[in-house]
Amino acid sequence: MDTFYLLFAASLVFLMQAGFALLAAGSIRMKSVKNILLKSVMDACAGGIIWYLFGFGVAFHQGEGGNGFIGTSGFNYALSGVDDTSGASYGAEWAFFFFQYAFAAAAATITSGAVAERCTLTGYLAYVMLIVGLLYPVVVHWVWDPNGFLSAFNPEPPGPFKKLPGMIDFAGSGVVHLTGGVCAFMGALTIRPRLGRFVGDETLFAGQSSSLQVLGTFLLWFGWYGFNPGSTLAITPAGYARDAARAAVTTTLAAASARLPSQLGGVPMWDLAATCNSLLGGLVSITAGCSTVDVWASIVIGLVGAIVYHVASCTMRKLKIDDPLDAFAVHGACGLWGCIAVGLFCTEEYSYSPHADSTLYAKRGKVDCGIFYGGSGLLLATQIVGPIFIILWAGGLSLALFGSLRALGLLRISVEVEQKGLDSSKHGGSAYPNVDAALKSLEEWSSSAPPSPERFGKVGSKV
Amino acid sequence: MDTFYLLFAASLVFLMQAGFALLAAGSIRMKSVKNILLKSVMDACAGGIIWYLFGFGVAFHQGEGGNGFIGTSGFNYALSGVDDTSGASYGAEWAFFFFQYAFAAAAATITSGAVAERCTLTGYLAYVMLIVGLLYPVVVHWVWDPNGFLSAFNPEPPGPFKKLPGMIDFAGSGVVHLTGGVCAFMGALTIRPRLGRFVGDETLFAGQSSSLQVLGTFLLWFGWYGFNPGSTLAITPAGYARDAARAAVTTTLAAASARLPSQLGGVPMWDLAATCNSLLGGLVSITAGCSTVDVWASIVIGLVGAIVYHVASCTMRKLKIDDPLDAFAVHGACGLWGCIAVGLFCTEEYSYSPHADSTLYAKRGKVDCGIFYGGSGLLLATQIVGPIFIILWAGGLSLALFGSLRALGLLRISVEVEQKGLDSSKHGGSAYPNVDAALKSLEEWSSSAPPSPERFGKVGSKV
Amino acid sequence: MDTFYLLFAASLVFLMQAGFALLAAGSIRMKSVKNILLKSVMDACAGGIIWYLFGFGVAFHQGEGGNGFIGTSGFNYALSGVDDTSGASYGAEWAFFFFQYAFAAAAATITSGAVAERCTLTGYLAYVMLIVGLLYPVVVHWVWDPNGFLSAFNPEPPGPFKKLPGMIDFAGSGVVHLTGGVCAFMGALTIRPRLGRFVGDETLFAGQSSSLQVLGTFLLWFGWYGFNPGSTLAITPAGYARDAARAAVTTTLAAASARLPSQLGGVPMWDLAATCNSLLGGLVSITAGCSTVDVWASIVIGLVGAIVYHVASCTMRKLKIDDPLDAFAVHGACGLWGCIAVGLFCTEEYSYSPHADSTLYAKRGKVDCGIFYGGSGLLLATQIVGPIFIILWAGGLSLALFGSLRALGLLRISVEVEQKGLDSSKHGGSAYPNVDAALKSLEEWSSSAPPSPERFGKVGSKV
Repeated sequence: MDTFYLLFAASLVFLMQAGFALLAAGSIRMKSVKNILLKSVMDACAGGIIWYLFGFGVAFHQGEGGNGFIGTSGFNYALSGVDDTSGASYGAEWAFFFFQYAFAAAAATITSGAVAERCTLTGYLAYVMLIVGLLYPVVVHWVWDPNGFLSAFNPEPPGPFKKLPGMIDFAGSGVVHLTGGVCAFMGALTIRPRLGRFVGDETLFAGQSSSLQVLGTFLLWFGWYGFNPGSTLAITPAGYARDAARAAVTTTLAAASARLPSQLGGVPMWDLAATCNSLLGGLVSITAGCSTVDVWASIVIGLVGAIVYHVASCTMRKLKIDDPLDAFAVHGACGLWGCIAVGLFCTEEYSYSPHADSTLYAKRGKVDCGIFYGGSGLLLATQIVGPIFIILWAGGLSLALFGSLRALGLLRISVEVEQKGLDSSKHGGSAYPNVDAALKSLEEWSSSAPPSPERFGKVGSKV
Repeated sequence: MDTFYLLFAASLVFLMQAGFALLAAGSIRMKSVKNILLKSVMDACAGGIIWYLFGFGVAFHQGEGGNGFIGTSGFNYALSGVDDTSGASYGAEWAFFFFQYAFAAAAATITSGAVAERCTLTGYLAYVMLIVGLLYPVVVHWVWDPNGFLSAFNPEPPGPFKKLPGMIDFAGSGVVHLTGGVCAFMGALTIRPRLGRFVGDETLFAGQSSSLQVLGTFLLWFGWYGFNPGSTLAITPAGYARDAARAAVTTTLAAASARLPSQLGGVPMWDLAATCNSLLGGLVSITAGCSTVDVWASIVIGLVGAIVYHVASCTMRKLKIDDPLDAFAVHGACGLWGCIAVGLFCTEEYSYSPHADSTLYAKRGKVDCGIFYGGSGLLLATQIVGPIFIILWAGGLSLALFGSLRALGLLRISVEVEQKGLDSSKHGGSAYPNVDAALKSLEEWSSSAPPSPERFGKVGSKV
Repeated sequence: MDTFYLLFAASLVFLMQAGFALLAAGSIRMKSVKNILLKSVMDACAGGIIWYLFGFGVAFHQGEGGNGFIGTSGFNYALSGVDDTSGASYGAEWAFFFFQYAFAAAAATITSGAVAERCTLTGYLAYVMLIVGLLYPVVVHWVWDPNGFLSAFNPEPPGPFKKLPGMIDFAGSGVVHLTGGVCAFMGALTIRPRLGRFVGDETLFAGQSSSLQVLGTFLLWFGWYGFNPGSTLAITPAGYARDAARAAVTTTLAAASARLPSQLGGVPMWDLAATCNSLLGGLVSITAGCSTVDVWASIVIGLVGAIVYHVASCTMRKLKIDDPLDAFAVHGACGLWGCIAVGLFCTEEYSYSPHADSTLYAKRGKVDCGIFYGGSGLLLATQIVGPIFIILWAGGLSLALFGSLRALGLLRISVEVEQKGLDSSKHGGSAYPNVDAALKSLEEWSSSAPPSPERFGKVGSKV
């Protein structure tokens, strides 16, 4: 039955691939839609193979001799060890692999938005290999593998980490979203803005389809009901069903409250794209604490998350860093806030509690709770220290990759291709040939016929 | 496990939000797409907060001293009472809250279609607060809360209702759809038709995207498999799995048979939008009886439901009441038919049957069945009386709200905004900027260049 | 609980209807989008009624006296016999019917793509009736009903089939996809290419929306997690959860590896539509063996499947058989490969293993395994013989139907209608009225105004 539960949750998380793909396709200009869609499909595919060959083994160490930094069973094919032929096997390993694959694919796809409309396929493929094969699974190992030095399940964390309680990141505000968001930041920074992004008419960079943006947002929200409740990884053990159900409620309310700032007039109440991203920011913010905070707290966390998103998004624009999908603001900034929020709002009852008679308990004792609930502050410290490690690791590695790709001239497409648009130059034509035909004809005419050539200049540059 | 089942069902019902949003976006004109999408997102968000603060407590009375009309535990924060820290807790309360939230959001979103393209955000927000906070939960309390005066689970209904068996509305043809549909009718009536709706060219009001209409319809149909089977609220008790599985079959066949009239030539067999709405009408019609009727009966119910939809839809157009999504015809008219159908087709075996040794049984005895199965007619009477109460309550309250909003001038957008389109005047541009650019340029030219200016008049008015 | 599991899986499979509909709508020209969407909706509807009245009874024989070729309980209304009023009933029959309905609808919808843009509604409806009512269920009976002559669950298969082990087609590479794909081939062959398909500009036949193609592909992939793991039909029996979970993993990796050929440069790495179809080909290829092969083998099967798809697709174009969705290449060719692959890769442990003390075991003994695992080759033979029967039956019957429809002039729409487009001539206007208006105006102008009339020739012919 726990296997069934994981299959259910993993399927929902998998559907987030469709959500990310549509959100991205809707948020960019029409001339690169096919390209971003192809990259989303590549994520799901290449990601699957790499996760099977390396990622899973790097993340979850099989057998003895695990270390705190990285799993070393990656190269001997993660799943080869699985013996499921005994009658006792319920295929839990398979379901777990499938569930974790869906997470890895999500982490990888977060970045695609930040480099949209100007990244080469080669550069993107290299990035996917890095994050799914090494960068992300190492973070998973730190926090979710019992050997990880940040893990709350590690009876004997190395040196200084003994003094800290383990990091509480239930469904991955830090492990998945902060990691992906930091890579997105480095990607957007290294590849530089799209041509003309911060000069002239903002509106020329409006997303090409609001319908796809909203559908993508709803599919992601739907998938989050697999992402957060599913992270109990089982439903039968005592308290698991309870935590899963509460996680569904906190997830709902965090998303719902993320719309509040705009309804309170704090931000442009009419902006649809910003509204969608606020919701996603709220969902990212609750992901770390979805099972460990009170329901009322999820409203505060979501509301603050929406504000964090808006501040981060505006700052990025001020810094002239072009992140077409606000991937950093949504996943990076709100992911960080989500981790910290646990240090503030984590309750004592809901906090990870090792069985009183377990080695874990004997060695590390009771888990700390958030400072608003009389916590010692050690948990808060952990929730800050952990993300710092993630930021340094993910930021450093991705910067190195994107930097060298740029140095090699493999990162960004040529100016000609970018002006013409990736779809017509590389993918055999526009994603919407009929609309494209109309715009092209108007453009041709604009040279010859009155009136308002500049208007057609615009139309043209939109094709 | 029942918790898991509810989480599964609730997630599917939640996805109906996406279905409603796309169906609406596809069924209106291009110039207001962003606006309707934003309203759908607001539904899901504002609805969540209001349902948490008031709705849930109004609907399901916590603790003693419940009355038949309304729950009074709303204001002390519905969920604050939940103690889930005992080992015995399976989080059923959380899952139940989540499931009921998804229903409330569905009820709220039904109306958005009826006032599409001309309602202010303020007016819409006021409406959402009313229906989610008071109007809908009161109806829920009547029919689904053990204290409700119409409830089949109420051992001691007040006065005259003692004589009647409780109302059988398994998944909410009446509670959810009729309620939402009646509000939709009042909204459409009060706000008056879109400019030019009933003068001149019908085709100018064709939905802007059939693809979104059909996707929305399929997502709703999919969600209905959570809506109807999920309404057993559990899967382990004896007979529940059976009822859930039968409900899935009756739901399928009712939707399938709703296409029959058009295939039999009864209605334009080529009309895609009407076909989608017929299916939804069939689904609404089976919702009340999905678990209590024979499988063959679901075909009759769906088929008649499709006819009911078409008659209602044509009548609305005759009355010049502009309901862009046929929300009243689909949810209101078919919702009413669904309730009545139970009074005709409810079988004795499948009818709600209280345990012979329960207080309920002792006080109210055996439940009646449909008149086609030798019922006394009392059930049929209940299935007619109940909806009358719903119509009076929902109709009166929503008319009062929409009426006062109209009196205050807060209900409808200005003529200028409506002509220009909500998206470009309020939401920073069209939902499809590229298509919009092409149409705008053509419009500009139409003034200067040959031929067929009237054609471009059309194009223009479509932008 | 098994009921719940089937409801979950069936719901996912049902959503594949939306996936097929969008994939089709996105892959054809804009002028027939409404038509193909309507056909997809008709599939789901007409399919449901026919499956209930005939198909289910033809496929799964109720009661005694079953024969190896066809179920004969179809006409006495498949479900009338179900008695679910006993307390012991868990509604498994209902859930099973629902699950099988979703499969039948999938089989039917496969063909719609092959005859897209030129088939009459009448012709299409006739086809749906044939395949759902007789053609497909007979194949189901052969392979999945214990009475079927190809069935691995049949203790006493007729004559020569005694010597062969039963055919292993776990989730339907052969039963569902090969059957549908062969019908698609016959349909495309009989109805002949769309006007101008193989003369002049290829690009005029580009799919109208890549976003819908990709969304459709992801929805299908998602649905496959119900299609393959769900085909255990239960989760509680020993080994079932294990097989379901492994099936989820093999399904994932087969889809993922199907992108490899293009990433290895084998096929145009930039082609989005081909990439989507490769994935679907990989999914079809693993469907027969998803529960019986090693995880590593699923990568080989998916990779080869992608190549099989590309070869078949190119061959079809060479033969000038116009299959707008590559339905034959994806479902037919890869479905055949999927069956054969089982004969190569089926392991001994995972192969269907009857209980050692069962009649089945006593009469037919141990099941054979794939030749790469020391199989005798008899299983491989079965996996080749079975598909041959399917091809002859499905091909013959569908050819007969399409042939006679063509002879009667009922198969194909008139040249006028095809040139004008089905939507504007039959369905009351384009699926995207705004885009259509722009293109129409440009077309009108192209006659009068410079420059480049031939360009507008194009635009026009695209409307």
